[in-house]
Amino acid sequence: MQDGLSAVKVLAFDVFGTVVDWHGSIVRELRSRYPGVDADAFARAWRSGYLPAIDRVRRGEREWALLDTLHREILDEILPRFGLGGLSEPEREELNRVWHRLDPWPDSLGALARLKERYLICTLSNGGIGLLTHMAKRAGLPWDCILSAEVFHAYKVDPAPYLGTAEVLGVAPGEVALVAAHHDDLAGARACGLRTVYVERPLEWGAGHPKDVSPRPENDLHCADLGEVAERLLPG
Amino acid sequence: MQDGLSAVKVLAFDVFGTVVDWHGSIVRELRSRYPGVDADAFARAWRSGYLPAIDRVRRGEREWALLDTLHREILDEILPRFGLGGLSEPEREELNRVWHRLDPWPDSLGALARLKERYLICTLSNGGIGLLTHMAKRAGLPWDCILSAEVFHAYKVDPAPYLGTAEVLGVAPGEVALVAAHHDDLAGARACGLRTVYVERPLEWGAGHPKDVSPRPENDLHCADLGEVAERLLPG
Repeated sequence: MQDGLSAVKVLAFDVFGTVVDWHGSIVRELRSRYPGVDADAFARAWRSGYLPAIDRVRRGEREWALLDTLHREILDEILPRFGLGGLSEPEREELNRVWHRLDPWPDSLGALARLKERYLICTLSNGGIGLLTHMAKRAGLPWDCILSAEVFHAYKVDPAPYLGTAEVLGVAPGEVALVAAHHDDLAGARACGLRTVYVERPLEWGAGHPKDVSPRPENDLHCADLGEVAERLLPG
Repeated sequence: MQDGLSAVKVLAFDVFGTVVDWHGSIVRELRSRYPGVDADAFARAWRSGYLPAIDRVRRGEREWALLDTLHREILDEILPRFGLGGLSEPEREELNRVWHRLDPWPDSLGALARLKERYLICTLSNGGIGLLTHMAKRAGLPWDCILSAEVFHAYKVDPAPYLGTAEVLGVAPGEVALVAAHHDDLAGARACGLRTVYVERPLEWGAGHPKDVSPRPENDLHCADLGEVAERLLPG
């Protein structure tokens, strides 16, 4: 194990893309509900609205709003582009809740169960407490604790959620490692003194849109998936 | 099942006294660390400081403070009375964390595992997120989500934690039942539209100080322990 990781007691996990496969889950649900729609493009369009929406909250251009609200606003915006402008209010609400029903990557459940034996494992996600709780219950994600931007009323990559995770759990920032598939998230954590574990997830945006997953030396650990995180962090 | 409980989706549990045996746990730890002390009186004195401390926060007479801080202040106050005024700072901190190490009542783990199959089960405690997380991890309490006064920056019996639990989890207040061994807590929940399940725990304050556990008609359900809660709420 890397020296910097030997003091770690808490593994805080980014969720969307790192633990669960948002693209594949949304594509599957779209294809089953609305077979005529380009589900791959729809999923990418929906997720593409995420960072700009979060940034408006982070810059103070709008008041605090839950990710469910932001997801719904982006959904309303993109539906007409995909020929779904006629969806009713209940249909929109039901579709918006697909983010509560995302499926884990195949390696996630087994790796989390193993890591939980040695570490305190928690979410650290911009998803709300309810979203993360419903997702965990449906998928069987064995979190010790669900922490969310909602607890701190601040979205990553603001410092508050990173520092707040350490404070709330009563440990030093250097005793927390963020596990995430996104370098901006890891950079935010590192700036607050947290340790960082990068997970590749090359197909997060779908098979047609592979990500650059080349290693960056600033991370404490670089892993193909959560299975490798467990292999590298657990003895024997 | 009572009619009012048939709509319930979320069981929110008071923790101290309801799920875990604070008196017995503190007595065991005191006897092992400081055999000469009247452990029963010590445990009761410590817990007796709890409600007045919470009330000072609730009345705005002091700023928000975590329960860990309040427990520590009460501890510092009572230590000299029990001949322990000479304890060092690290000894005090270690003793204060006994609240993170409380043992469940014998029926709690099995009942929670069964109830979790049908309900979303969460804490709703004045203990902090860290306290509740460390307690759950040590004892194996299988919460779907850990909710705390700390999330809402308001202590029970203020309305905020009761209403906030429903809001955060995306359900109506009437779809949440509070399970608690304390009538004031249940009354606070009921005033916010939550359903109420009373659990007796007659020996919460020790074998020498049994509580009055006579039924009150305003609660939706009256149970001897969490095992009976599971029996009454689960079919078959």
